[in-house]
Amino acid sequence: MNYYPKAMSRLIKELAKLPGIGPKTAQRLAFHLFELPRDAVTQLATAMVEAKENLKFCEGCGHLTEESPCRLCQDPMRDQHLLCVVEEPKDVIALEKTREFRGLYHVLHGALSPLEGIGPEELNITKLLQRLRAGEIREVILACDPDMEGEATALYLAKIIKPLQIKVTRLARGLPIGGALEYIDEVTLGKAIEGRQEL
Amino acid sequence: MNYYPKAMSRLIKELAKLPGIGPKTAQRLAFHLFELPRDAVTQLATAMVEAKENLKFCEGCGHLTEESPCRLCQDPMRDQHLLCVVEEPKDVIALEKTREFRGLYHVLHGALSPLEGIGPEELNITKLLQRLRAGEIREVILACDPDMEGEATALYLAKIIKPLQIKVTRLARGLPIGGALEYIDEVTLGKAIEGRQEL
Repeated sequence: MNYYPKAMSRLIKELAKLPGIGPKTAQRLAFHLFELPRDAVTQLATAMVEAKENLKFCEGCGHLTEESPCRLCQDPMRDQHLLCVVEEPKDVIALEKTREFRGLYHVLHGALSPLEGIGPEELNITKLLQRLRAGEIREVILACDPDMEGEATALYLAKIIKPLQIKVTRLARGLPIGGALEYIDEVTLGKAIEGRQEL
Repeated sequence: MNYYPKAMSRLIKELAKLPGIGPKTAQRLAFHLFELPRDAVTQLATAMVEAKENLKFCEGCGHLTEESPCRLCQDPMRDQHLLCVVEEPKDVIALEKTREFRGLYHVLHGALSPLEGIGPEELNITKLLQRLRAGEIREVILACDPDMEGEATALYLAKIIKPLQIKVTRLARGLPIGGALEYIDEVTLGKAIEGRQEL
């Protein structure tokens, strides 16, 4: 990389550290940035630093926020008896975009994964139990990812939540809308048959 | 996007302006940046701003540099009689990586393209003719991209350089037509320099 002037090779090196950005893409981005007006570069740089400085996790639900408790936790219009448990802040965003869910959230910040050394202590579970013991929540929807770690996490949570006399549900498994039946994997199709609903 | 806290949606918006970065990738990058240590984010932001502030084009050859004239122009070990004309600074890098060429460079900053309104005046050609008229250069290698604009540029330059009694060559036709110079592997590019032919 010392074919480049120092400032350029440094920028390429920094960009190439980002996930999914290889050396060629980093080079292309670096040249693009160099060709941008100075203001545009400053704007991007400032957005990065300010996001890092101003964002934190909500003390209530663990979602990404600028003020804690977050906007979702503070919203009196949301159903205070319904709690949806997700793995990551981006899952909150995905669910919000559906406009189907009007309850509260709880973000675990991960899923159980013995292989990666992630046990219950590494997840935002103590706080979850505190919220449940406060007595307002009547139903917990476990919206973990439909993969091995997510399933394990959901089973674990169901086991510790049920003794609190709270209804525990999880997202339906089945056919993704817009998909063609022939391309759907066997496991999903099996779950769709298992969970079939009367019309 | 107003599902996100303001600092986050601003960062996602800024990232999505980059070429080849769609909204999903921008979101992934934004979360990655948020999860990085503060120092790492500052480093990337600083590298961007400093690249923009410290880099310029060499007054001699038009290559990207921090000081002008650039390292390549200043290097007395390079063949002062041999000049390679390229479209972009990244082409200089690509050629340097072959280690086959030890002469000087001249960067045009583009190629002739009547459709996009790029004529000879838009390219770094006046300066090229000045350098050639200075009398040191004995051979000009036209290393334009092997596409339509590049070919047109090479033919145009050959026509105006030949009257100066300077040998004009171009890279061997080992280049795959339609490719962009920066993506060609070093060996092919090296062979192309080796087998250059007189126009």
